Amino acid sequence: MTMEGGEGVGKTTQMRMLERRIKAAGFEVFITREPGDTLLGTEIRRMVSEVKDESPCPEAELLLYLADRAEHVRKVIRPALKKGKLVLCDRFADSSEVYQGRARGLGAEKVRELNKWVCGDVWPDLTLFLDMDPGEGLTRASQRQGWLGLDRLEQEGVTFHQAVRKGFVEQAAADASRIKIVPAQGKAEEVAERIWTLVKPVLQKWKNSEA
Amino acid sequence: MTMEGGEGVGKTTQMRMLERRIKAAGFEVFITREPGDTLLGTEIRRMVSEVKDESPCPEAELLLYLADRAEHVRKVIRPALKKGKLVLCDRFADSSEVYQGRARGLGAEKVRELNKWVCGDVWPDLTLFLDMDPGEGLTRASQRQGWLGLDRLEQEGVTFHQAVRKGFVEQAAADASRIKIVPAQGKAEEVAERIWTLVKPVLQKWKNSEA
Repeated sequence: MTMEGGEGVGKTTQMRMLERRIKAAGFEVFITREPGDTLLGTEIRRMVSEVKDESPCPEAELLLYLADRAEHVRKVIRPALKKGKLVLCDRFADSSEVYQGRARGLGAEKVRELNKWVCGDVWPDLTLFLDMDPGEGLTRASQRQGWLGLDRLEQEGVTFHQAVRKGFVEQAAADASRIKIVPAQGKAEEVAERIWTLVKPVLQKWKNSEA
Repeated sequence: MTMEGGEGVGKTTQMRMLERRIKAAGFEVFITREPGDTLLGTEIRRMVSEVKDESPCPEAELLLYLADRAEHVRKVIRPALKKGKLVLCDRFADSSEVYQGRARGLGAEKVRELNKWVCGDVWPDLTLFLDMDPGEGLTRASQRQGWLGLDRLEQEGVTFHQAVRKGFVEQAAADASRIKIVPAQGKAEEVAERIWTLVKPVLQKWKNSEA
């Protein structure tokens, strides 16, 4: 299961709230994020976040995220799944298809093809796209951290973040049975409730397939 | 034009000697290496060289080299070619196809496909594979730097380096018109002479196509 969305939409908060609810429903859940907390992922997280004089080209940016994903899938996600855990990941393959494939123009299909090679059989059953006006999200992110506290991607202009949002909407339309759009305005508890309505049937299905 | 080969075969020395000869023949030559000396390449060079408790999985290792190559091709190699320079690169696409594709088992064809996406129209006219018994090469490298001075790839066992050598020989057989095997034993001047015999006709062809 993965959670996706632009900057400042409240993914971290919702991840924690969802984790508690899934646990309360009696499931073992493992929380992770991309770039992953592997040795390699930590370095890549720093590299893609740092604001520098020169940004990497879109291809290099994508390949760094894919390197992180290859390591994360093999060293973290697949082992957790093998232990029978439900894995909840903050950003995953769809982020690459939307940010680099759609918003940066490398092509969502090309990125999907690369993702499939990198991920193999590890693919989310459900993806929650937290949707909010990018202006509002960025305001929330910069109120929290200050503009200088924002990372390289957060500092991209509003036009880029609008392209990302449009990309996520297109991505959801292209894979409607897996990717669900969750309106992310309003109180955290209200958003959590919307998410829970979508997660419950997937947990039920999961329980039945395990039994 | 690219130079390839295992550890300790004398690539750096031969690169310098070849650069001098090409310049003396009246060509503008630009020398570079992979991982490249871009901002990103410098970080990737450090990441793939450092000896750590845990090595990245083969897929992640490959994707890091590809990220470097994407940046290197766009920010360094293509601009130099556009200025009409002859580019001489220490390691390039064949290294990925041999080290990760053949020796680590990801498949040379898969890596070629990824290389083609990363490199686009930038592809070597001539590749010189400096060939030497891996045991001898490693002895030379460790005499120069001491065992602890060797990087992560150099410290791989002899079995791995033998697979790399076998991989280069197969790679050369699969693309015989471009990849030339150069025996790398003997004095540096002798090896340089072998190289020059192979490079001269390519320079001539290049001169004619420019005219």
